[in-house]
Amino acid sequence: MGNEAVMLLWAVVMTAGILAGESKYMVYNTSQGIVPDKLNVHLVAHTHDDVGWLKTVDQYYVGSNNSIQAFFQRWWRDQSEAMKLVVKKLVNSGQLEFINGGMCMHDEAATHYIDMIDQTTLGHHFIKEEFNVTPRIGWQIDPFGHSAVQAYLLGAEVGFDSFFYGRIDYQDRAKRKSEKSLEVVWRGSKSLGSSSQIFAGASPENYEPPSGFYFEVNDASPVVQDDPELFDYNVQERVNDFVAAAVAQANITRTNHIMWTMGTDFKYQYAHTWFRQLDKLIHYVNLDGRVNALYSTPSLYTDAKYATDQSWPIKTDDFFPYADRENAYWTGYFTSRPALKRYVRVMSGYYLAARQLEFFKGRSKSTNTDSLGDALAIAQHHDAVTGTEKQHVANDYAKRLSIGYKEAEILVSSSLACLCPLLNVSYCPASEAQLSQGKNLIVVIYNSLGWKRAEIIRIPVVSGDVIVHDSEGKEIESQLLPLVDTYVSLRNYHVKAYLGQTPVQTPKYWLAFAVSVPPLGFSSYIISNAKRPGSSSTRSSVHTFHTSESSAVEVGHGNLKLTFSMDHGKLTEYVNSRSLVEETVKQSYGFYTGYNGTNDKLPQNAGAYIFRPNGTFLIKPEEEVSSTIMRGPIIDEVHQRINSWIYQVTRLQKGKEHVEVEYIVGPVPIEDGTGKEVVTQITTNVDSNKTFYTDSNGRDFIERIRDYRADWDLKVNQPVAGNYYPINLGIYMQDAKKEFSVLVDRSVGGSSIVDGQIELMLHRRLLLDDSRGVAEALNETVCVVNDCKGLIIQGKLYYKIDPRGEGSKWRRSFGQEIYSPLLFAFSEQEGDNWINSHRPTFSGIDSSYSLPDNVAIITLQELVGGKVLLRLAHLYEHLGSTDVLVQRPESLTVNGLFNIRLVIGEDKDLSVLTNVELKKVFPRKKISKVAEVSLSANQERSEMERKRLVWKVEGPSKRNDAEIRRGRPVDPTALTVELAPMEIRTFVIQFVSNPASSI
Amino acid sequence: MGNEAVMLLWAVVMTAGILAGESKYMVYNTSQGIVPDKLNVHLVAHTHDDVGWLKTVDQYYVGSNNSIQAFFQRWWRDQSEAMKLVVKKLVNSGQLEFINGGMCMHDEAATHYIDMIDQTTLGHHFIKEEFNVTPRIGWQIDPFGHSAVQAYLLGAEVGFDSFFYGRIDYQDRAKRKSEKSLEVVWRGSKSLGSSSQIFAGASPENYEPPSGFYFEVNDASPVVQDDPELFDYNVQERVNDFVAAAVAQANITRTNHIMWTMGTDFKYQYAHTWFRQLDKLIHYVNLDGRVNALYSTPSLYTDAKYATDQSWPIKTDDFFPYADRENAYWTGYFTSRPALKRYVRVMSGYYLAARQLEFFKGRSKSTNTDSLGDALAIAQHHDAVTGTEKQHVANDYAKRLSIGYKEAEILVSSSLACLCPLLNVSYCPASEAQLSQGKNLIVVIYNSLGWKRAEIIRIPVVSGDVIVHDSEGKEIESQLLPLVDTYVSLRNYHVKAYLGQTPVQTPKYWLAFAVSVPPLGFSSYIISNAKRPGSSSTRSSVHTFHTSESSAVEVGHGNLKLTFSMDHGKLTEYVNSRSLVEETVKQSYGFYTGYNGTNDKLPQNAGAYIFRPNGTFLIKPEEEVSSTIMRGPIIDEVHQRINSWIYQVTRLQKGKEHVEVEYIVGPVPIEDGTGKEVVTQITTNVDSNKTFYTDSNGRDFIERIRDYRADWDLKVNQPVAGNYYPINLGIYMQDAKKEFSVLVDRSVGGSSIVDGQIELMLHRRLLLDDSRGVAEALNETVCVVNDCKGLIIQGKLYYKIDPRGEGSKWRRSFGQEIYSPLLFAFSEQEGDNWINSHRPTFSGIDSSYSLPDNVAIITLQELVGGKVLLRLAHLYEHLGSTDVLVQRPESLTVNGLFNIRLVIGEDKDLSVLTNVELKKVFPRKKISKVAEVSLSANQERSEMERKRLVWKVEGPSKRNDAEIRRGRPVDPTALTVELAPMEIRTFVIQFVSNPASSI
Repeated sequence: MGNEAVMLLWAVVMTAGILAGESKYMVYNTSQGIVPDKLNVHLVAHTHDDVGWLKTVDQYYVGSNNSIQAFFQRWWRDQSEAMKLVVKKLVNSGQLEFINGGMCMHDEAATHYIDMIDQTTLGHHFIKEEFNVTPRIGWQIDPFGHSAVQAYLLGAEVGFDSFFYGRIDYQDRAKRKSEKSLEVVWRGSKSLGSSSQIFAGASPENYEPPSGFYFEVNDASPVVQDDPELFDYNVQERVNDFVAAAVAQANITRTNHIMWTMGTDFKYQYAHTWFRQLDKLIHYVNLDGRVNALYSTPSLYTDAKYATDQSWPIKTDDFFPYADRENAYWTGYFTSRPALKRYVRVMSGYYLAARQLEFFKGRSKSTNTDSLGDALAIAQHHDAVTGTEKQHVANDYAKRLSIGYKEAEILVSSSLACLCPLLNVSYCPASEAQLSQGKNLIVVIYNSLGWKRAEIIRIPVVSGDVIVHDSEGKEIESQLLPLVDTYVSLRNYHVKAYLGQTPVQTPKYWLAFAVSVPPLGFSSYIISNAKRPGSSSTRSSVHTFHTSESSAVEVGHGNLKLTFSMDHGKLTEYVNSRSLVEETVKQSYGFYTGYNGTNDKLPQNAGAYIFRPNGTFLIKPEEEVSSTIMRGPIIDEVHQRINSWIYQVTRLQKGKEHVEVEYIVGPVPIEDGTGKEVVTQITTNVDSNKTFYTDSNGRDFIERIRDYRADWDLKVNQPVAGNYYPINLGIYMQDAKKEFSVLVDRSVGGSSIVDGQIELMLHRRLLLDDSRGVAEALNETVCVVNDCKGLIIQGKLYYKIDPRGEGSKWRRSFGQEIYSPLLFAFSEQEGDNWINSHRPTFSGIDSSYSLPDNVAIITLQELVGGKVLLRLAHLYEHLGSTDVLVQRPESLTVNGLFNIRLVIGEDKDLSVLTNVELKKVFPRKKISKVAEVSLSANQERSEMERKRLVWKVEGPSKRNDAEIRRGRPVDPTALTVELAPMEIRTFVIQFVSNPASSI
Repeated sequence: MGNEAVMLLWAVVMTAGILAGESKYMVYNTSQGIVPDKLNVHLVAHTHDDVGWLKTVDQYYVGSNNSIQAFFQRWWRDQSEAMKLVVKKLVNSGQLEFINGGMCMHDEAATHYIDMIDQTTLGHHFIKEEFNVTPRIGWQIDPFGHSAVQAYLLGAEVGFDSFFYGRIDYQDRAKRKSEKSLEVVWRGSKSLGSSSQIFAGASPENYEPPSGFYFEVNDASPVVQDDPELFDYNVQERVNDFVAAAVAQANITRTNHIMWTMGTDFKYQYAHTWFRQLDKLIHYVNLDGRVNALYSTPSLYTDAKYATDQSWPIKTDDFFPYADRENAYWTGYFTSRPALKRYVRVMSGYYLAARQLEFFKGRSKSTNTDSLGDALAIAQHHDAVTGTEKQHVANDYAKRLSIGYKEAEILVSSSLACLCPLLNVSYCPASEAQLSQGKNLIVVIYNSLGWKRAEIIRIPVVSGDVIVHDSEGKEIESQLLPLVDTYVSLRNYHVKAYLGQTPVQTPKYWLAFAVSVPPLGFSSYIISNAKRPGSSSTRSSVHTFHTSESSAVEVGHGNLKLTFSMDHGKLTEYVNSRSLVEETVKQSYGFYTGYNGTNDKLPQNAGAYIFRPNGTFLIKPEEEVSSTIMRGPIIDEVHQRINSWIYQVTRLQKGKEHVEVEYIVGPVPIEDGTGKEVVTQITTNVDSNKTFYTDSNGRDFIERIRDYRADWDLKVNQPVAGNYYPINLGIYMQDAKKEFSVLVDRSVGGSSIVDGQIELMLHRRLLLDDSRGVAEALNETVCVVNDCKGLIIQGKLYYKIDPRGEGSKWRRSFGQEIYSPLLFAFSEQEGDNWINSHRPTFSGIDSSYSLPDNVAIITLQELVGGKVLLRLAHLYEHLGSTDVLVQRPESLTVNGLFNIRLVIGEDKDLSVLTNVELKKVFPRKKISKVAEVSLSANQERSEMERKRLVWKVEGPSKRNDAEIRRGRPVDPTALTVELAPMEIRTFVIQFVSNPASSI
């Protein structure tokens, strides 16, 4: 894996230690520092080495094993001690600077904040261990838009003093240039405000040198020819070019410091070509004297900016969506490669749970979660989970995840076996096994959340004659739902495609039953053959309706009822008898055709990055296609075939007040020669007034207004693509009475193009490249033997309509359950005396304790040496009492929303300070020390706060800083962690070794 | 300038001094030497850096100032002392090896041997001075065919033990592979035979690595991935690839040593990419053990070959012409850029003369011939004088020559002024000045040859009332020839094109008169206004004939008479009344159209490199165009306009028995969309029986037989292009009675496509690129302001018909005079008493002495420190008494030629041992020491001979080695240099300082 961004500053090394030779040998003076009364051009030598894009990460590394900055960690472990000493010397002198310091430069749209934290922590740990260095600078120069969570959480909370990035909307950039506001103080969190702000600079033109200053081997920029004995001496000309470019940049920049990013993708393969020219430029430009050129780093630049005592404009919200020019919105990649995105999300939740189990069992050197952690870290790269890599590279990421998963699975199984202690626990879905030989199937269900969960689970079984008992031997209600052909054939197809074999057995039913699992613990359930006829699980009633039938069907068990109008094949009425919400809801599918701009003057196709629709097409359910209703005591399902390549199940579960929609989409047809981007729309009567909310990396919700940007007067050229936003947790909208929320199971793009309607893009299949470098059409294809067809994806979305002000509880708590689904393990057991032989339930925390509803343990991980890394996240936002997020344009009516916002936080009960009792989180261990550390755990939190630069902002504050709340330091005796809204606190905890009892 | 080829062998430096690090750090074992009982794969790391091709030499250097092997001399002078010490250490250890060692890798077809010697001497001097190293290996891997002179003169005579090259005919290569005869002992000289032989190896496929072993940055070959922790581990696969490639090469190679040229054009820009892979390959291949891989150099390889005691096939003659595949004969470049070729040749002769004058005057640090020497050295590069560079690069070479010339011109003028001693001597043609103001024009004429010369010279004058006196005041006969319009307008055009101005005065006449100049000396002549009417120079009689007139006109003054048939506009009869040769001669012009293969399956256009005619077109003299005859006492001229773009003058001079043809060709018309290659044919009745002779680099003549190769059964696919050969001195043919010789004024391509006829290609203008990398059509264009037209070239050829056995005297002696034309300087003088004020004649050698007719001083140059470098060249060949040059195919009749060859040398009088008296060559100095040195003057000759490897050859010798003659060592008292036929002997001579008199 690689630490993607490492700064280089070789200047001194290039010229130091040189003997003054004969007259021909030039010694260039590159020792120049800052000159206060001149324009200072900070030359920052850098290379941007994607950890996978056109080639896989390893192909990039071994194929160009040639430069210190490329895939630093891989390179580092191959080096001799002598070379390591040289590098350490360069790092200590400041000539080589680590910035960002994650394992990759993660994406900011399709990534979940927990993954971002994990991958940054991995990289920072490596740098700390090897160099005792704490990176100070955020460096996200290539990701395709920038998130609020990146700025405050992966920026300020990591201890960065500044944050630099390259890609912001072309209209925004133009305005910022004219206002000298490319550099701002960014307050990304409404809850944490100025306590989590960061100095943030967008570069004038991505992350390249000024035109004419590219010095890679074979680059065409004129080199400085300063040998008068050779032809084409050009020193003055090049100095003039330099000064002109510097002055141009100074004209759009505050203070007399500008930064030049001297490098771009995969440069410095032969660093001398750059440094030779930079040496000369510094030497001759400073002889010229008009401007001051110096070797610099982002740290030096940041300190120079800070030293000017300048006040900076404030930036809130984020930089999405990103368009690099007209009609070129990079909003397609929010959905590109939906299967990979889902795989990453599943692995993310699994990694969280697996580390908990690893901690409970005790970390092993041989089998652990490291490989999965590495694979997940790389997968966060901005050409990985984004879906903007070539197909073979996407395959490589998936392969790495699968290898990591396999190793973690062994760990998980052995941990559960160890905890149970039931031998031969297997995580592999064994539930399809025949139970006829008198065997019982034991299902072990692990809950990685800090609160007890009651859920309906479903397990495929081959026989209907089954019965379920809980771990106390009590029979519990269960329901059998027949597996429909669509699922069975899809299952067989995928087994054939990925395992190369046809399944021996085909399950006939889903067996559904309600389970209850303690916090950070497991429960066990036993599935066995029903001994008496009639005693077995309840079979669902199944009714099939044809579209010709004119009837309405109601489904639902408790408070929530849905009524489907069968003649239209559509849901029509949503009624919650508890909350008294009644709503007419319609769900539909449609697709956009990908724009083919090949023959345009300024060609811009739709592609992996870019969403550029060429028309909207509603998919009407096919004539004479039936809908099937399955009903039973636990689950009601409405199955609908939307067309030949879209199948949908609407599911209601006993005890739950949300609707679960499962969809199967694909292969998207391309026989007509056009690519398609498939969306679903859920339409309500919510009077959303152009406004909706989407999450930032699954964390803070940000207000979005259709065809509007807070920072500039938007010129609308793409009324759909330009209103798309990334969604990792969910999207919602509201009016004075109601909130309508949709949650997702992976990163997708979505919007509200019509008031009251939420639209999600589910799948993309395109036939053209969009000219952003990947040079491959996003046409995902699966081949079984020689039969290739477009990728079929399967996913879920969840929606709920709440009374105004009551939606966040579901979005936050259930959202966390989507991220951390219950984890199953299975075992077969002869006879029924097994209960006596093992521990049927377990909780990692004190059995009397549960974490507050507004807190999640997002990391619980044993470190080398027995210490534990613990991260606690408050899940709710505090919105402040005077917080005005955006300046509404006068054309927009101010609605009730504004007033409510004045009152309080996201949730009236849960957006409050809360406490976690560490002693109860670790009931079996004795805590000897709790150190609060930075988010990436590479320094003490107090040290980080002490060093933090405090930037001045211009204009009146829009938020009363006094309202900002933070949890107090942890009292070493009480060991209670206080968490303010949206706060994440990170601790390294030490235990007294060998406490009296373990587990 | 650059020493083009430098061997790299970094292996030890890569792995030496490395600490044994942690397990991940690999130390590769690359210390492997030769293993006698295995197949040894000599990995020779090299890069081939053209000193100009697509970019100029300086552009290549400063644009990629990044690697030790590139343009070594330029790089070297920029280095610190510390770096120089590192390099010296590498050179001393053998890790870095200088091979070839010239300033460039000169071409072998379009170069004159004197230039080849000079440029090699310059490079060898640099290497000797800086490193005390004498290169042992010839390395001509890229030139487009290989010459006999290269092998024996620039190979064996320089002291090389072996010589490696890349390009030989594809048919030849195929046969040599099957016979394992790519490696031979090459005896390039008929005269010197085994005393000048060299081990010579053609590589199996040019000079690249085996397919799949290219390791430059960004190359696609699979790198050795030996980290089992990363994906795609491929060590065994790569070892297998290596072994397979080695075995394949071993199968076509004698002995168990093969060489891999690990590099190609402009590689090792970042050497680590290569050495990392080579390290790994050596390590793992040797662990595998099937073959032995080692870091090597051409020296180590040569020694390994020698140690096997193998016998090698003998190769004689040369490797021209070169075709790299069917229909792809690289014979176009023999003529490409004829103006540049002429410029190089003019400068070459001038450089020789200028160094003589520099010696006579005493070398100055400020103004000297160094810059011209450097420019000429670079111009010998195989993409320089060849004409295969881009246009702007050709311009750069010309510019360098012009700068060098300007500096040398100052030196020449001041030397002559110093010798005269007449103030203000100017070399600039001042003869056009008006003489009416009572001024005289003094013409100083320098002869750089060692024998006295009597020639007719011509000077343009503006007035016809002039008279010429010799330096003793005696009036001498002169003749005025009117300048025809074609010349005047061409002159004005070129002045405008190159100087940007229109000439103020236009000369009206050529003033011709006979001069006599002593060896290495000058004479003076005075041109003044005729004082008496009628006493002035004789005006030529001028007659104009129209093609309609039916008459025959005879021209000529003495023995040689030509008769022109005016109604055909053609010469018809050639009669020499002394030698009794009578011959019907026809001269014609024609052109080939350049093949356009763009749409072929295997495209092959005609272009800068490749001659591929698509049809032959005879140019018929235009109807009704007149011929003009000018006659007078000294010169007779026949002016003929062949067509609108070809003009020709046939010239006979008093006292000379050859015909001089001056031609003006161009702009070659391209309005019809086809490129053209313009040729002239001179047709006689000589019964040449498919056989003709062309020189090798202006030195040895080599027999050529049409549609035949001595080394293999030629498959003829290009009956014209495949019979073209390079010509630098001349071409001749013979039958039992006569010899017909044509000499040239520059490098051209030529052949005999029809018996009795000699064809020369004079000009090429093509519209397509021939796909050999230059990527530019050879369409030379001259622009005056905005008016651009095709290049017009002007040149001369000379022909003579002699009785059998008498031609060589003219070819050799007059050929030397073409190379070293008389050099003019001018001065104006008031009155006529100037004779008393200066020395009107001078000879650098003893006034009683003249060098033998068969010897030329090809170098007389003062070295730093007052020593003198002297090279004496015997000009005649010794052919031996049993020498059979080629095995005649049975289909060819053996003619008289064979018998005559059995008898004696090239000339019955002059192919003999001869002597030069050094004391008389330096009459004004006292010689203190004469050291005979190698041809490139970098080691004592005796030391060179002592070290020389003596290679074994297979089969019976075709030549009696005992017949080979060499001059004996110089007796330090007698100081007489003995020269055998074709021998060139090089001496460094020291003088007693401050002898009694100088000059």
